[in-house]
This record gives sequence, structure tokens and C-alpha cells, in this order.
Amino acid sequence: MCPLLWITAWALLLHGCAAGRVPQAPSTRNDIRDCSVDPPYLPPTATNTTARLAALRGTMRTHGALAYIVPSTDAHMSEYISERDARLGWLTGFTGSAGTAVVTQDKAALWTDSRYWTQAERELDCNWELQRTTSIESIGMWILKAVPAGGNVSLDPFLFSIDTWNSYSRVLHGSGRTLIPLETNLVDQAWGDQRPLPSSTEIYSLPAEFTGSSWQEKVAGIRQRMEQHVRRPTAVLLSGLEETAWLFNLRGDDIPYNPVFYSYTLLTNTTISLFVEGSRLSVAARESLRSGCPGPLCVELQEYGQVSAHLRRYTQGNVTVWLGTEYTTYGLYGIIPQEKLLEENYSPVMMAKAVKNAREQEMLRAAHVRDAVAVIQYLLWLEKTVPQGQVDEFLGAQHINALRWAQEHSRGPSFQTISASGLNAALAHYSPSNGSSRTLSAGEMYLFDTGGQYLDGTTDITRTVHWGEPTPLQKEAYTRVLMGNIDLSRLVFPSHTAGRTVESFARRALWDVGLNYGHGTGHGIGNFLSVHEWPVGFQSNNVPLEAGMFTSIEPGYYRDGEFGIRIEDVVLVVEAQTEHQSGETPFLTFEMVSLVPYDRNLIDLRLLSPEQIRYLNSYYERIRAHVGPELRRQRLEEEYEWLQKSTQPFPVNGAGTAAAGTLVLASLLSVLLGGLGA
Amino acid sequence: MCPLLWITAWALLLHGCAAGRVPQAPSTRNDIRDCSVDPPYLPPTATNTTARLAALRGTMRTHGALAYIVPSTDAHMSEYISERDARLGWLTGFTGSAGTAVVTQDKAALWTDSRYWTQAERELDCNWELQRTTSIESIGMWILKAVPAGGNVSLDPFLFSIDTWNSYSRVLHGSGRTLIPLETNLVDQAWGDQRPLPSSTEIYSLPAEFTGSSWQEKVAGIRQRMEQHVRRPTAVLLSGLEETAWLFNLRGDDIPYNPVFYSYTLLTNTTISLFVEGSRLSVAARESLRSGCPGPLCVELQEYGQVSAHLRRYTQGNVTVWLGTEYTTYGLYGIIPQEKLLEENYSPVMMAKAVKNAREQEMLRAAHVRDAVAVIQYLLWLEKTVPQGQVDEFLGAQHINALRWAQEHSRGPSFQTISASGLNAALAHYSPSNGSSRTLSAGEMYLFDTGGQYLDGTTDITRTVHWGEPTPLQKEAYTRVLMGNIDLSRLVFPSHTAGRTVESFARRALWDVGLNYGHGTGHGIGNFLSVHEWPVGFQSNNVPLEAGMFTSIEPGYYRDGEFGIRIEDVVLVVEAQTEHQSGETPFLTFEMVSLVPYDRNLIDLRLLSPEQIRYLNSYYERIRAHVGPELRRQRLEEEYEWLQKSTQPFPVNGAGTAAAGTLVLASLLSVLLGGLGA
Repeated sequence: MCPLLWITAWALLLHGCAAGRVPQAPSTRNDIRDCSVDPPYLPPTATNTTARLAALRGTMRTHGALAYIVPSTDAHMSEYISERDARLGWLTGFTGSAGTAVVTQDKAALWTDSRYWTQAERELDCNWELQRTTSIESIGMWILKAVPAGGNVSLDPFLFSIDTWNSYSRVLHGSGRTLIPLETNLVDQAWGDQRPLPSSTEIYSLPAEFTGSSWQEKVAGIRQRMEQHVRRPTAVLLSGLEETAWLFNLRGDDIPYNPVFYSYTLLTNTTISLFVEGSRLSVAARESLRSGCPGPLCVELQEYGQVSAHLRRYTQGNVTVWLGTEYTTYGLYGIIPQEKLLEENYSPVMMAKAVKNAREQEMLRAAHVRDAVAVIQYLLWLEKTVPQGQVDEFLGAQHINALRWAQEHSRGPSFQTISASGLNAALAHYSPSNGSSRTLSAGEMYLFDTGGQYLDGTTDITRTVHWGEPTPLQKEAYTRVLMGNIDLSRLVFPSHTAGRTVESFARRALWDVGLNYGHGTGHGIGNFLSVHEWPVGFQSNNVPLEAGMFTSIEPGYYRDGEFGIRIEDVVLVVEAQTEHQSGETPFLTFEMVSLVPYDRNLIDLRLLSPEQIRYLNSYYERIRAHVGPELRRQRLEEEYEWLQKSTQPFPVNGAGTAAAGTLVLASLLSVLLGGLGA
Repeated sequence: MCPLLWITAWALLLHGCAAGRVPQAPSTRNDIRDCSVDPPYLPPTATNTTARLAALRGTMRTHGALAYIVPSTDAHMSEYISERDARLGWLTGFTGSAGTAVVTQDKAALWTDSRYWTQAERELDCNWELQRTTSIESIGMWILKAVPAGGNVSLDPFLFSIDTWNSYSRVLHGSGRTLIPLETNLVDQAWGDQRPLPSSTEIYSLPAEFTGSSWQEKVAGIRQRMEQHVRRPTAVLLSGLEETAWLFNLRGDDIPYNPVFYSYTLLTNTTISLFVEGSRLSVAARESLRSGCPGPLCVELQEYGQVSAHLRRYTQGNVTVWLGTEYTTYGLYGIIPQEKLLEENYSPVMMAKAVKNAREQEMLRAAHVRDAVAVIQYLLWLEKTVPQGQVDEFLGAQHINALRWAQEHSRGPSFQTISASGLNAALAHYSPSNGSSRTLSAGEMYLFDTGGQYLDGTTDITRTVHWGEPTPLQKEAYTRVLMGNIDLSRLVFPSHTAGRTVESFARRALWDVGLNYGHGTGHGIGNFLSVHEWPVGFQSNNVPLEAGMFTSIEPGYYRDGEFGIRIEDVVLVVEAQTEHQSGETPFLTFEMVSLVPYDRNLIDLRLLSPEQIRYLNSYYERIRAHVGPELRRQRLEEEYEWLQKSTQPFPVNGAGTAAAGTLVLASLLSVLLGGLGA
């Protein structure tokens, strides 16, 4: 899905360094708000935050905090959060997914990145300064000005990653201001009984037919990793919501689009503690978890809120706790004495989950075949209805969501549907809303980036189409984006290559003519879990590629105020067949898992090399072989015909055909010359 | 030059993590030594270290150290070291460039990587265990077994990088063993008066015609960076020998192949302290440094050994010291209070030095033209003399060194000449020695990786040749290495792209058929400074590429026991001409600076794309245009003829020609058909 969302918001949440990744020029723009007049001019979309701020400032005085920092994430470093965790949104009125607020007794400021500046100006009232950057250094400078030496700066350590805490700590170090972790969340105090209640919906076991292995097998595998580790950890601490959901084959719906539930796990070599609201577990789930009791495969249920106390007790013993720093908050981390810590970027559960076994691969492939049916239905529907001028972006989004819902095992979209026409697609994270939605037309390009949750797998695909006459630049840019997608997809590379070191292959065709895109090139994906499943992908903090990993490949090109292109497919890392072999492990390549043809109307064949065309033709054969039968099974004959038409092989012109042509002509010539007696 | 040397030895010195970069399978090989028999069997090349170890153990007892760690680098994290700093070599007998020794009262062990295992077995006596790994974790485990809890482990903090210190510290943390920095170096004590004296040769100013700017301009530039930095540092501390040499336009010869001298610099916003043996400065150098006295451009000369004391005094004030952690030892770093430190990977001097100005670029280009003359002379000489069977690797090395010496401004080789025939070239770091040198023959491939120091620039080039009939695999591998070199050299990419993210373009042609190489792809290079000039290059700890940087590009392929291929050129990062432009800065590409043709006998043209052939042809035109006139100027007519022959344009077959061929044939056909009245 929309990669700006994840390169910035996500990296920001995890690393607090989005500004470092996506360089932003200092802004000289004017604010939509005018706070210099009396009364101030505010757009109607702004929220009055005076009472909320007053309440927060009251709690700050009680706790002696001269400044309070409010982040946008939750206690599990989740990419998507629940309403109950939308503290930043409640306090500021700003509903973007990435930002940081700092409040003092007389000032309040919000930091966010360029994607959200306009939105923030529309939503903030005049209590708030908008800071158009996200660097912790800049937040620190602001705090140094606003808080006198000797003052305390506070935050909730259970809402900050270890890295982000350390960055704040470094910035304030030696300045005379002290960074104080406060376990009481002051926004929650101010929010009071208006704060949404925790989810109470059922947490359920995945049916066995939708799991890659039993939870007992998964636990045994993690314990084996513990035994094999040179540091011999005695326990693994899991904070990421996907980690616990995956380990126990449990799902819930505490967070939109992600079938997870609030929980922590402490898995030791002899015990298993699952911290969760136990009453929410279905009977079957509870039975499954208790089936090994008593014994090392007995899951002890503990209150969600008890994780800190339990961890504190556990780490008094002669133990070593293994955790992944990317998903652990500073609050939990700080409980464990340094010498009892085994820190890696990702927990062994994240690492195990990243490599799908044969059953999981089969399920993800199957989900993508059904997903392709829905997308093909949508493309055909668009082709027929757009020219009548009755489809807008919002309606389109609703329609494709409905088509997915109709597919077997569907559990709804895997993220907010991106449906963007014309210049709206230049904003890579655009989602339409009812009432302010652009009408699709044959005169504009249309980009849709959508995905589904199915019991057997999560999907994510982007296609860009044009039903009329694209401009030469649109056609060239689309073709170059496609070339990038092809070049990376067909790459052969050694096992354990870092995605970061090969993602440029998706950019080269654009680079050749001075074009580029400002987001990452792909991310892992789950089996009925997150659409952005780390640690797989092409970012610098992703782990090396191994056979069995799934990732998206999604180059794009965006032209401000004009159009946007992205072509995204999910691929599976598989062993390659190579003529030679160096090293002990086979080389790898990608197998296409997304199975939807590209828009022929936007492809300039002259730019493609014969190898690229051959690759495209073999991909189309694959689509026909896998999706064709499913379309027939679902009696979608018109879609089947559309697919046949859309996957006609392309002529391999350029080198291949031309050379063959030369041969034919040369033979013909020699016959003719022979006939002439030459 | 030989990239294994720098990926492993260098990365090891700087990061202590070579094992993590070049994965090594656990070895099951037998040692050449047999220490189980009495008397032990030792090869004649082994050194008796009994007395040396006894002396060291004596000093260890005096200082209460149960274990002592001896590294291979010096106090400046230099890649090459002087004899006086060869503590590891003296203590162990092992003369490889990378390793770590640990000594206790009854044990002694040496850790080194796979390049050096055979050499270590030949050089160590039975006092030494050989540990075939380099991970600090493994060294730590060994120490934990050898030293009882409560014991002290010591090292000289002025010989360890900050990172390496931290790694040892982590490994021993909480184990009951204490890591004690000892400012007295115990090996030096044991070595006593046998230790070579410090260099006493002259330190001289580079003539103005060989400098890119005056040292005063450079100092002003660094002070400007200090003022512009958000932390407002008051001083920059320079530990790297190249840093001080570059800043003051001074050179010396304390270290083989690198024209540097032992020194530190503390540059503050108002003063300049140069820590050096002042009596060694030439009169002109001294005058130049004192020309701005008194004043902010007055260089105060201080004793080399006074740097710690001076730094301790300076940091008592209200100051902030900016340093690059990659070149600073833990010893100096530890002197500065944390809140007065501004740490970055590289100092502002390293960053400034990395981008060559127009004059420096011009000088480096000129040095490479003269260097190409020497290499072309050598290639022609080989062609004529090898078939007579009179040239061996050592003689070849001597000959090319002599040819370089004969070029204007020459100051000798820039590293130990690599001259490797047949299977010897499979060892990427092989250098021949007199008496054990393989004879070159028309039946084998020959690889030479050589470079020169010239007053205007440092050079580094590798060519691989075959005078007879290469095997199909040799030809394919050579061609694919060349394709990699071409693909990376002609890449167009955005400004500030990290080398690490594009170096795979140099590997792809090999990867396609399951081949690869186990070293890095390139490194920066200096103006009469280091042949491996950081922070430029394609490694993960290199900085993003900018116009004005020079780097080598050097893919290879090595087949154990058979042959080795490497093709290395130096290139300059320049602005690219692109059809479009996205972003505010122009895209970049590389300009070829090395100007020596490749071996036509080893190129399989059928593998190259038309674009690759066209690129090669334009490179050859460039060689003719730049080196041809210089050959004539030097009256090297035979070499001139050789160059013309060797740079004949290649036919652009494949796609391009074939398509053109089709056109020609088609036209001919239509004429004929017309003639036939068809």
C-alpha cells in the first residue's frame, strides 16, 4: 500500500527520524489559519482545544512537569492505533497519523511532516504552533527555549521507543533540563471518562486450516532459537501486537484493518505468560491455550496491565530476557537490568514470522488469486462505467471493497482504500472521503492502492490506469515505473542480500531520465495480519532477504498537481535456477504473487528491452494459468474474456525480434540473390 | 587496490566486525603446525616468542592484568602502520595486517580471518592458539574461560576505536571481569629498547602548485562548518593522520605507501594546536605554519605526546569538541566529558576532504593520465616478454614500479603491488615475494592491482589479462565482471545517493548466472594521500555520493585454486545530463578517470548489450583523446600504436546492429524486389 505512509509515519514512529529519510526544504508557506487577527480566523474544520489544554496543564502542574511530550503511537509501537490511543488527536484536533506535540504552561506546538501540513492547518486552533519538521533535535531546541534550566520535561515512557527516548535524552543532556518518565499518562488523566473504553470484542483462535503450524510448534521453535543463541536467553518478551497474535494463532479486532488485540507475551524456557484481557478470549481459544496445563506448554493468562510488575519480578532472578528493540517501549525496556538484557532489532518471533513455511506460502498465494478476481472485476467495471461520468473516487473505493468482501474468506480491507484520480494521485497517501471526491474520467489517470484481509492471507496491490489518451510524459513515466518493477522482480541475487542494497533496481529506469520517487520500494506482508509486516522489505532497517519471505515491490512517480503513478505487486522470495553456483546456498529471485495485468494503454513498448518484454509475457502466462480457472469457477465469463484480452503476449521487438527478423530477411535475400544468379 | 584488504582488515580495524561482513564457515582444516609431538613440528618460518611472552607476562603481573588484549592498529586507526607500531607482529611473529592477540599468564591466542590462516600457521609457534574467526564475541568467550571472575582484563585505550572498546565492554559486562584501560602500553614495555625508534625524517609542505587551496583557506572552511553547526562546537579534534596532513598541506613518510606523519590537531574557533615532533618540520613548513602568528591563523606547535593533557585542560572550559568517531581512539574520546562532545562518524575535515575542488580534480585526472602511460608500457612489455617465459610475478611487480617511478612527480607505489598469476590471483590480496614467485605464461590469466603516489594525486588500477586461449568460464566471468564495472560506471542517480545502495549494479551481471565476489566494490582515493581514502565508497559506513568525490569501482570474480579476475577503475562523481529533472539538485553519474583499455582477448561481445558496447566505445575514445597525446609527448610510439590497436571501437552487435542490419537488408530487399518487378 501507499509507501509514503510507511516510510514516513512508520519510520517516524519507530525511529523518530523521518526528516532524515525524506529531506524537506524549510517551508516559507503561509498558514491557512490567521491567529494575528481578533478574533482569529480559523477554518471550520479546526477543533477548540482550550479546555483540553487547560485540563492537561492542570495535571502537569500536579506532577511538576514544565513540558509534556505527546507522541502519536501506542504502547506496542503499532502503525495503526485504536481510538482509545489517539491521544495526540484528542489533545490537538490533528488527525494525521504522524506527529508529536509538546505542551508547556503557556505554549503548545505540534511537529509533523510535509504530508500533513495542510491538514494540520485545517485542524489546529490558535492554541497551537505548527512546526513543519519532525526532527527530535528541533523539538529539543524548542523545549530548551520554552523550559528554563532546572525544569522537568516529562513523557509517558510506555509510548516511546528506546531509540526515541535516547534521542530526547541526548538532546537535553547537560542542558540542566531533566527528562522524567511519568508512568501516569497525563493526557489520559485530562481525557478522563471521555476517553473511549478498551475493546471488548472476542479474541478468537484461527481455524487450523488457516494456520501454518500449531502454536505449540511455534513456541517450540522459539525455544529452540533461545537454546541455540550464544547468550542462552531464558525468556523472550513480545510487545508487538502481531507477535503475540502470530505465536498463538489468535486474532482480534482492536485496531482498524489489523486483526490484532492488545497483549504482551513473556515466553520463558519453562513457562508462557500471555498478558491479555482474559475474559475476551473465546471458549475455544481459552481451551487451546490451556490444553498443555500444567507443563511448559501451558499458557498462563495474566492481566494486560500486569506486564510491568511481572517483568520486574521475573528479572530479579538469574535470567536473560531477549527482546526486539524496534517494538519495545522504553518503559518496559527500562525495567530489565542491563546485564540481563539480550537486545536485537527484532525478536526471534518477528524473525520466525518473516519466513513463511510451505503452508503459509500456499495460503498467501491462494488469497492473492481470489484478490486478483476482485481487482479484475473492478478494472472491467471501471472500463465500462467511467466513460459515463458516474464514478467518483469514493464510490470506486466502496465498489472495490464490496467486490473483495464477496470473495471467500474475506475479512474486509487491509488498509484504508486509496482511490485517486488525476492530480490527487500525486499525493501518494490520498484517500477520498464522501462528498469531496473527484470524478473519474477518461481524460485522467487513476491510481488505486487497495488490499484485503482474508483468513488465509493479507493482500496489497496498486494499479494505475488511463482510459483515454495519456500524455507522452505519462506514458514514459508509467513505462519506466513498470520497467523498475520488472527489473527488481526478475533480479537474481545471493541469499541474505539486504533489500536496501537492491531496491535501486526499481529506480534505475526512472533515474536514467532524471526522475525518481520519494518513498520506499516495498514492505513485508502477513498471513491475515499486518499489510506492512516488518522486518521484511527494502528499507535500511529491514533484515536480509531469505527464501520464504513475502514483500511488495512498488516503484512510482508523482508529479505535483498533475498525476501520480504507482505499480505495486506482492512477490515471494524463492530459490533461483542459475547456471553456476558460488557459495553454499542457492541464489534467490522473486516469484510474482499478485496476479493482475498492467494497463496496455500506458506501456510504451519501445522503451522495454527484449528481456523485460519476455519477463512480462511470462508473467501474463502465469496470470492466465492461475486466475483464469478461478474466474471460470466463479462464472465470471466477461472478466475471463477481459483477462485473455489484457494478457495477450507483447511482441518481443528490439533485439530479439529484430535479430530474428534479420535472419529471415537474410535468408530471403540469399534466396533472391541465388535466384538472380548473384 | 585489493578490496579484500580493505573490506576486512580495514573494517575490522574500524569496526571490529569483519566476521559479520564476510561470513566464514567454521573451519575444519588441520594446522600446519603440530604442537602435539615433542619437540613440536613447526615450519622454519615460525618465530620463537617464548622470551617475548615471558617479558609481557612480567609487565602484566606488575599491573595486575590477568589478560591483555593486543590489536593490530595504531593510535590513529591507520590502515597501514609503521614498524614501531607493529606490536602484534613483534609479540606473535604473525605479520598479517589484521588480527588480535590475547595473552594470559598461561595462554596466548591470536584471532584472524580466513585470508591469513595459512600465514598464521606458518608464523606462529606453539605458544599460540590460532582462532579462526575475528568476532569480538568469540574473543570475549575465550577471555571468560581463561580469566576467573573478579579478574582484570587490560588494554591500551589509545589503540582501540570507540566502537571496539564498547564491544569488549558489552561482552564482559556483568561477567565479574573488569575491563581496565591501561595508559602504559605493556607490549612496549616488554619490547623495550628493541622497539624501532620514531621516524625522524622531514615533514614538508606540499608546493603550492600541488595543493587545491591554502591551509589557511581550509582552516577557514572548517571554522565555517563549526559556526554553521546547530551545536556550535568550539573545537574540532583530528586524530586521523590524513586529516592533519590534508588540512595543513603537509606530508611526511612515517608510514609505508602513505605520505603522512604522526600528529594530532585541535582546531578551535580562535587557536590551532598541531601536535607533532616539531623539530622534524622543514624550515618552509614551519614558516608557513607560523606566518599568521599571533592570531587565529597561527599554528601553535605542541609535543605529539601532549595531546591528552592539552585536551584534558581544554575540556575543562565551556567548550564543545567535534570529532569523528571512526578515527578517534577510546583513549582520547574518554577524556572529553560527554556533554562537551559532538560526535559524528567523520570529522568535518574528513567530510571536506572527500569533495575535491576543481583544482584537485584536475590534478587527480592529470596523475591518472601519466599513470596510464606506465600501465600501458607495462602491458606492452608483458605482451612481448611473457611468451619467452622470463617474467615472474615479482619481476613484473618490480618492472611496473620502475615504470611508475619514471613518470613525472612520482613518489613511488601507493600500496604493495599485487601481481598474481593463475591460481595466485584467486587470493585477492596476494603479493609476490622474491624467490617464491610464479612465472607468468600465455596459458594463465594474470591480475595486477597497482597504484602510484604522485605529488598531484594517488592512483589505483587493476587489469586482468590473458595472452593465450582463455577457457569459456574465464571469458564469461571476465566479461561479466566488465559488465558490472560498466553498469555501475554509467549509472545515473540522484545526488546524495549512498554508495551502498547502488553497488549491486556492479554485481548483477555475475549474479545473473550465480556468481559473485566477496569484497566491497570501491573506495575513495586522495590527492597524494591514502589509496583508500574514507569516507567515500560503496560500503555501509561510507557517506552519500556527491559531485567532486573520487572512488574506485572494482568488481571481481575469484575461483579457488584456479584464477582470479578484477577490473578496477577510479571514477569521479559528476553531474549528469538528464532529459528531466526531479528535485532541486541535478542527478549524478561517474566520469572515468583511469584510462587503460581492457583485454579484448577476454571479452565475449555477445554478452554485452548495445548500451554497454556503446559506453565502452566512448570510454575508449576518451582514453585515446587523453592518453594518446601524452604517449606521443613522451615519444612512446610503440605504446601509441598499441593503444590505437587496443582501443579500436567494438561493433555494436546485439540489438542495435541487428536492428540496423534489418533495415539495411530490408532496404536491399526492397530494391531487389523492385528490380524483380515484385
